[in-house]
Amino acid sequence: MSFRVTKNVRFSHCDPAGIVFYPRYAELCNEVVEDWFRDDLGISFRALQEEHRLTIPAVKLEIEYLVPSVYGDMLEFALSVEAIGNSSVQLAVSAWNGEEERVRIRLKIVMVSLEDLRPIRVDEEWRERFSRFMR
Amino acid sequence: MSFRVTKNVRFSHCDPAGIVFYPRYAELCNEVVEDWFRDDLGISFRALQEEHRLTIPAVKLEIEYLVPSVYGDMLEFALSVEAIGNSSVQLAVSAWNGEEERVRIRLKIVMVSLEDLRPIRVDEEWRERFSRFMR
Amino acid sequence: MSFRVTKNVRFSHCDPAGIVFYPRYAELCNEVVEDWFRDDLGISFRALQEEHRLTIPAVKLEIEYLVPSVYGDMLEFALSVEAIGNSSVQLAVSAWNGEEERVRIRLKIVMVSLEDLRPIRVDEEWRERFSRFMR
Amino acid sequence: MSFRVTKNVRFSHCDPAGIVFYPRYAELCNEVVEDWFRDDLGISFRALQEEHRLTIPAVKLEIEYLVPSVYGDMLEFALSVEAIGNSSVQLAVSAWNGEEERVRIRLKIVMVSLEDLRPIRVDEEWRERFSRFMR
Repeated sequence: MSFRVTKNVRFSHCDPAGIVFYPRYAELCNEVVEDWFRDDLGISFRALQEEHRLTIPAVKLEIEYLVPSVYGDMLEFALSVEAIGNSSVQLAVSAWNGEEERVRIRLKIVMVSLEDLRPIRVDEEWRERFSRFMR
Repeated sequence: MSFRVTKNVRFSHCDPAGIVFYPRYAELCNEVVEDWFRDDLGISFRALQEEHRLTIPAVKLEIEYLVPSVYGDMLEFALSVEAIGNSSVQLAVSAWNGEEERVRIRLKIVMVSLEDLRPIRVDEEWRERFSRFMR
Repeated sequence: MSFRVTKNVRFSHCDPAGIVFYPRYAELCNEVVEDWFRDDLGISFRALQEEHRLTIPAVKLEIEYLVPSVYGDMLEFALSVEAIGNSSVQLAVSAWNGEEERVRIRLKIVMVSLEDLRPIRVDEEWRERFSRFMR
Repeated sequence: MSFRVTKNVRFSHCDPAGIVFYPRYAELCNEVVEDWFRDDLGISFRALQEEHRLTIPAVKLEIEYLVPSVYGDMLEFALSVEAIGNSSVQLAVSAWNGEEERVRIRLKIVMVSLEDLRPIRVDEEWRERFSRFMR
């Protein structure tokens, strides 16, 4: 299963060449993860921090820019889980315009306690949540 | 030789956890490349587009987040060239706070003609410019 | 009549104090105007530039920050037209969380030809479109 | 006396029309205030929060966009203090390219305690600091 969400390429995402400025895809990727947590995992980023006392910093980000996008384009993002480590989760996020893949992203996040900022083990409950999105 | 430039981590770079929001490093990386073109290669992004009729989109970006940074930190960025392809250039950019490496980035850009948006061959003049920064 | 659209306050909008970083509201305002053009006026920003050869730069922006917002908040934006000048349009945009007004914005835009970057007269067709949102 | 700092208009500030995207000036304004606190008032934003336990949210922002700027432009920003209220400070920030004024900003900030998020009185020490920049 993958989590899917459609996003509009906005004027603010684009540079003087008229195409999405490449750093903006890192922001869009974070939006997709935020939507996934809230809409599918059922835990908003706010609840994650305020109630669970967890945060999920990125440890590695890889983005392949396949085809440029212009403002007005609709992009369908698909997120899936590639691997679940001891305290990390490897995500694959790609953006499609129709049948055309525009961007392919890998993001590795780590679960960190807000109390001491140290990685914590991904427990069974989280493991079960994440594993539903393993492809 | 590497190109070096110091940047201040700003309030606007940081997220509610008080650390640099990870997409902001992609923007900072682009600033470093922009500074390098202007201050060392001697061709501003504007001249690149307006006079040379070239643009340099990213085709691949990899960021390893080693140690978090907080606003007020001074980061020294070092940029070097790892490889020069037919029409692409592979850059390595890392950010240091004192002796501590905070972030390690690889960015592959491609030289594209603004006329037809097709890659062009990196000619001898550009090759010579870039090769001074080969490590 | 006012144009209404709901937006989620995102992690990326917030600063180390945990509240929306004040410049982000200017971006959110632009998103609202972009949505209004596309969803209600029936002309996307892309069509505006590519087909109508028009652009709508801001000439004046005023933002009153009434109550802070935190990430996870849902904000309902309401946009209306306050005045239609020769070549300008004065917009009022406010953001509400339930019954609480969070931010109050005035944005004056001007219609400019892409050919010579000079203001053009708001013609009857545009005047009619905009006047439906006069309050 | 005014605080002056020069900033480069970056590729990332500009939109598909090739000019500074108007919300970016709100970010640039915040950078100027951040530089002023650090370089002239002698208190970094970090020290302000961590040591003084204060934060300075915006309560009102007004921006007049006089002349568009393009990437590569150098802008000289000048900041001065227009008024010091009980707990607020009214700043005037303008951006010049040579003799041409590009943007004129008014920003009202309020001093707030991080403990209870309530406004505090601008004490004599702060008043003296700020008043050196009254015009």
